[in-house]
Amino acid sequence: MAGSSIGECFRVSTFGESHGPAIGCIVDGCPPGMTLSAADIQTELDRRRPGRSRHTTQRQEADQVEILSGVFEGLTTGTPIGLLIRNTDQRSQDYSKIKDLFRPGHADYTYLQKYGLRDYRGGGRSSARETAMRVAAGAIARKFLRERLGVNIQAWMAQMGPIHAEDFDAAEISHNDFFCPDAGAAIRMADFLDGLRKEGDSIGARVDARVSGMPVGLGEPVFDRLEADIAKAMMSINAVKAIAVGDGFAVVEQRGSYHGDAMAATGFQSNHAGGVLGGISSGQDLTLSVAIKPTSSIRIPRQSIDVHGRPAEVITTGRHDPCVGIRAVPIVEAMLALVIMDHWMRHRAQNADVQAPLPPIPA
Amino acid sequence: MAGSSIGECFRVSTFGESHGPAIGCIVDGCPPGMTLSAADIQTELDRRRPGRSRHTTQRQEADQVEILSGVFEGLTTGTPIGLLIRNTDQRSQDYSKIKDLFRPGHADYTYLQKYGLRDYRGGGRSSARETAMRVAAGAIARKFLRERLGVNIQAWMAQMGPIHAEDFDAAEISHNDFFCPDAGAAIRMADFLDGLRKEGDSIGARVDARVSGMPVGLGEPVFDRLEADIAKAMMSINAVKAIAVGDGFAVVEQRGSYHGDAMAATGFQSNHAGGVLGGISSGQDLTLSVAIKPTSSIRIPRQSIDVHGRPAEVITTGRHDPCVGIRAVPIVEAMLALVIMDHWMRHRAQNADVQAPLPPIPA
Amino acid sequence: MAGSSIGECFRVSTFGESHGPAIGCIVDGCPPGMTLSAADIQTELDRRRPGRSRHTTQRQEADQVEILSGVFEGLTTGTPIGLLIRNTDQRSQDYSKIKDLFRPGHADYTYLQKYGLRDYRGGGRSSARETAMRVAAGAIARKFLRERLGVNIQAWMAQMGPIHAEDFDAAEISHNDFFCPDAGAAIRMADFLDGLRKEGDSIGARVDARVSGMPVGLGEPVFDRLEADIAKAMMSINAVKAIAVGDGFAVVEQRGSYHGDAMAATGFQSNHAGGVLGGISSGQDLTLSVAIKPTSSIRIPRQSIDVHGRPAEVITTGRHDPCVGIRAVPIVEAMLALVIMDHWMRHRAQNADVQAPLPPIPA
Amino acid sequence: MAGSSIGECFRVSTFGESHGPAIGCIVDGCPPGMTLSAADIQTELDRRRPGRSRHTTQRQEADQVEILSGVFEGLTTGTPIGLLIRNTDQRSQDYSKIKDLFRPGHADYTYLQKYGLRDYRGGGRSSARETAMRVAAGAIARKFLRERLGVNIQAWMAQMGPIHAEDFDAAEISHNDFFCPDAGAAIRMADFLDGLRKEGDSIGARVDARVSGMPVGLGEPVFDRLEADIAKAMMSINAVKAIAVGDGFAVVEQRGSYHGDAMAATGFQSNHAGGVLGGISSGQDLTLSVAIKPTSSIRIPRQSIDVHGRPAEVITTGRHDPCVGIRAVPIVEAMLALVIMDHWMRHRAQNADVQAPLPPIPA
Repeated sequence: MAGSSIGECFRVSTFGESHGPAIGCIVDGCPPGMTLSAADIQTELDRRRPGRSRHTTQRQEADQVEILSGVFEGLTTGTPIGLLIRNTDQRSQDYSKIKDLFRPGHADYTYLQKYGLRDYRGGGRSSARETAMRVAAGAIARKFLRERLGVNIQAWMAQMGPIHAEDFDAAEISHNDFFCPDAGAAIRMADFLDGLRKEGDSIGARVDARVSGMPVGLGEPVFDRLEADIAKAMMSINAVKAIAVGDGFAVVEQRGSYHGDAMAATGFQSNHAGGVLGGISSGQDLTLSVAIKPTSSIRIPRQSIDVHGRPAEVITTGRHDPCVGIRAVPIVEAMLALVIMDHWMRHRAQNADVQAPLPPIPA
Repeated sequence: MAGSSIGECFRVSTFGESHGPAIGCIVDGCPPGMTLSAADIQTELDRRRPGRSRHTTQRQEADQVEILSGVFEGLTTGTPIGLLIRNTDQRSQDYSKIKDLFRPGHADYTYLQKYGLRDYRGGGRSSARETAMRVAAGAIARKFLRERLGVNIQAWMAQMGPIHAEDFDAAEISHNDFFCPDAGAAIRMADFLDGLRKEGDSIGARVDARVSGMPVGLGEPVFDRLEADIAKAMMSINAVKAIAVGDGFAVVEQRGSYHGDAMAATGFQSNHAGGVLGGISSGQDLTLSVAIKPTSSIRIPRQSIDVHGRPAEVITTGRHDPCVGIRAVPIVEAMLALVIMDHWMRHRAQNADVQAPLPPIPA
Repeated sequence: MAGSSIGECFRVSTFGESHGPAIGCIVDGCPPGMTLSAADIQTELDRRRPGRSRHTTQRQEADQVEILSGVFEGLTTGTPIGLLIRNTDQRSQDYSKIKDLFRPGHADYTYLQKYGLRDYRGGGRSSARETAMRVAAGAIARKFLRERLGVNIQAWMAQMGPIHAEDFDAAEISHNDFFCPDAGAAIRMADFLDGLRKEGDSIGARVDARVSGMPVGLGEPVFDRLEADIAKAMMSINAVKAIAVGDGFAVVEQRGSYHGDAMAATGFQSNHAGGVLGGISSGQDLTLSVAIKPTSSIRIPRQSIDVHGRPAEVITTGRHDPCVGIRAVPIVEAMLALVIMDHWMRHRAQNADVQAPLPPIPA
Repeated sequence: MAGSSIGECFRVSTFGESHGPAIGCIVDGCPPGMTLSAADIQTELDRRRPGRSRHTTQRQEADQVEILSGVFEGLTTGTPIGLLIRNTDQRSQDYSKIKDLFRPGHADYTYLQKYGLRDYRGGGRSSARETAMRVAAGAIARKFLRERLGVNIQAWMAQMGPIHAEDFDAAEISHNDFFCPDAGAAIRMADFLDGLRKEGDSIGARVDARVSGMPVGLGEPVFDRLEADIAKAMMSINAVKAIAVGDGFAVVEQRGSYHGDAMAATGFQSNHAGGVLGGISSGQDLTLSVAIKPTSSIRIPRQSIDVHGRPAEVITTGRHDPCVGIRAVPIVEAMLALVIMDHWMRHRAQNADVQAPLPPIPA
């Protein structure tokens, strides 16, 4: 009932607080026989790691992952994979002065009211630190999807505050500090963030994603539609406030004669649907967008109350990302990998023998 | 693994196709001792029922619900509640001519590829007919939430194509054919739909919702955040393409100094978050929006292929809603009721004894 | 959280009370493309049906099952299968006089204390009537297992009170009123029950079962071992008090040099394990036994209390089986079918591509 | 779908192989506010630890548990509790010579056939080493049940091969090497095991258990009856072959007039049911027995085959328990704690507000 697990067939359960001794997870259900090493996971973790540039938190976490089980002689065995990352840079003293305060935009108030007590150090369980294990587990799913099924998952910074990525150069995404597919926009984002940091403020972002090489048939109507589980996975990421598939909110003004993707012998003629029909993947590319709120930890003083209900001013002076949307990019990819992997396995449980009447016809 | 259930504590499982003998559901886990009659459920079903006005499908389903179990002498007993609705107006002949076609925007192609065969009559399981059971089950949750906890759930038509509801008069919502809180907009929507029907086209919509009287503390981090389960529930509704909580996509351009809701002894000073912080309800009103695509069944000819991959033209002449967003309103409410009820029970499983340090301070 | 469902991939959810309007279930996850008709299910239901002989309750339930969904043109579609049986012979008046009493051995006391109220008519939800839906759902799994995988499930009356089945003639099982593989024992059982009925008493039974044609590899260590889920399924049947796999309690006095089943190129040399090793099916026959308590509803007066805690005498004069073990035989088979089917699907979700290094070597 | 988790509200997920770097688990859903330290868990682990006497395996595992999350300033926080034990005494070389053999009674064959490969060192995931985490997680549940609810769980060695515990002295259980409540029997067990070890053989055992202070109302009919989940939990323990509740297999020969426990104003007059009626705890003591097979690893040569299907002789020379039943005692207790805790939470999710009509009347 508690919510620290995701997935049914490829099931990931995580634990760990921002300032505890370690964070970790269990990946249960990984198919056996896949090559897997700590390095495979580390590569993905390094993309999310804090301190990669001046634009993310300067907390220095090595984030060295250790595989504790489920891999033997370099191959997954089908048994649960335990992963562990020790927390190494915990400056708990940073937090003592806000221990009795509710920081605006943070989960301090809700955790305290829900559980009656809370680990106030760095947000405890509500810290984005937890997302490291999502990326670690997602790396395993992603490797399987890529190697066995040819699925390719790509997310990027589409917009940061007022700055849009206008060009799309996939190769550029890994070449700047923002996972931005537009080199010029990346330069403007850097300037913008430098200004924000001086002001002590933060900014929201939009992350877009595309999954190509999708198998046809993934998704379990009527409640566990593929896009429903994707929506849940996205909205489970810290700071995400909205998720759109395909044309998203633009459909509100669309007509049926425009929106419904026509089909031809050569494939679909458009992709307004974003790769799902009736909750099931069509084989077209999955396309989606998520909205990420600005970091709540800012140096600008905010009005709040303390745990006794008395007015208090809050200034957050720790090390924080001015735009959490940056590091959200690999997290979005990881969560997509987890959901697609899980649904591929779920689909096979029931339908592994099904002969699809038509060869796939995406396009 | 198949996806016909939702909820963990208040668990709803549904069955039934558009043109089968009946649809039904099981509600497992309803607390005992609540008064419940078929009439309580029928009231909600009648709001969703087709054929209420000229603006929804003219299919004439009485949608008479029968309670088959779980209620004794007018009270819920805590045992599973079985609900049944017989399908009475099934014109299966309408569908024989599209039995081998993939209708653009529909699930015909994906169901066939996933399962190898499909019930083509009226979309079979992928029909919106299935949502009647969501409304029926949701009526039970909603009654409990309202009577025991004072939770009030309200959704409305916020936008239909180009027409926005500009005023908000809650009393007006039940007084027009569109669940629109703006009487003037409702008149314009009627005119707009009359035009669309003549053209044989359809239109998208945005449905907004607000939940007041929310208990503090609902939501199970880190994966089963309240808004994550709401996002999943919304995206599981036929035709929904996007879901936003609080300020939604507007957060992309917001700064942290603006977005984070300040607190005072009298309560929260704003509600950009939409009633959730860190995945847990704050006691503020839940606010959300969903985007609903235009009906795929239209009379305008569309280009497609048949099950052998050969080009074919598709015209849908059955009885269809030109704007499925209208009937989505009670469905959105029902799904919200199911998620909140489920999370209230989940919360209690772990935390029923917790003394919250502060009295609730929404506002 | 409430417990009306079983299985994860092949998921069965049931509803219904003894004296409500109907009982029913949803089978979610059935593979598509299997032929299925109501007659396929009815055949199994008829084996469990009350009133087949003078030795079971004379309640006259036709137990006519109706398929409401999930089957199209004679084939399963992969969507949920809804099943319904109307209750036709409900003599509720029989129960009014025990409405405030706790019948010894029954669930009257525990249901009332758990839920605060109860449907006292015929035991309500705690009635064995509920098991009809297990048999109905099990019939679907059983058909699949038999036709697609060659799995054969057989249970029988091994002992009734003091009378043991000493011979084993599989063909005899369906030829007497007790599912007894020993024709002579069946005659003695009939005499014995005739005597018991005159006394107004009841008797316990042991039901044994064997599953042949088992696939190798089913079972999900470490908690969802095949025998663990079988144990749960068996112990979930009304009146079952013990479950043993393979040599069962006899292992307490066995030595390792005797118990461990030797292997040869031709296969296993014995089957003390009962077809499972480390929680996974070995391909050998599954063998098990369950103990079923005597019917609690008897005409002999028993000492009890009423709902106010006052002493009261209880005599049960309704129509009851003097040995519920008889009708338990098809229920045991049905539950085995459900568990094996579910585990076959679960296994495939993860391991459908695995090449087993050795061909199966049961024997 | 993979089976490394147990429980729904108090959910335990484990990982780890016998000879990997570590074993661990996540306990998700623990109520907040309970005092908890590593020492609380260590106490229980020490009871199960190998090498406590000459009668258990001489593998020297310190089994030092580390709490990695979920506890702050000595109190549980309601967030997931991560536990870790490093493996310190792994003599992997012991196993190289049986790497290609199927040891009789072991899971070598089934793991290889299921997953296509296996970690052969010490049984890998199928090793009893995994049960350490059950005891660790169970220690948390047990502490809660004892401190908050007054539930007391006690298991003991009731029979080892031919030697029965005839007396029952609860205080004696912790005073001998066998958890035996009969001091004289414990001496005979020691002699018996000394003889067995010389022969290189092993022996089965029966472990009995009693839970007192049970709350009324735990158990979720119809499938998740309390005894059904207990049966599953017991049968999920390595080497368990049978589980009986209350009078167990003796009910086969009992009459209803004897078996049904009479009630009086002072309470139940007997306890043939073993503390459950209709799948729900009655408040009486839970009583149960489990049968544990003899250790499969013995020095006596056994006939088997290798992974190529060729005949081979197997002798197991590692360090093994001649009677795994001994160390099963704390494991049985731990699993009972997990199931009862989980069901207490499940019950509260639905029924926390229920006013039971009668005060509890066990006796």
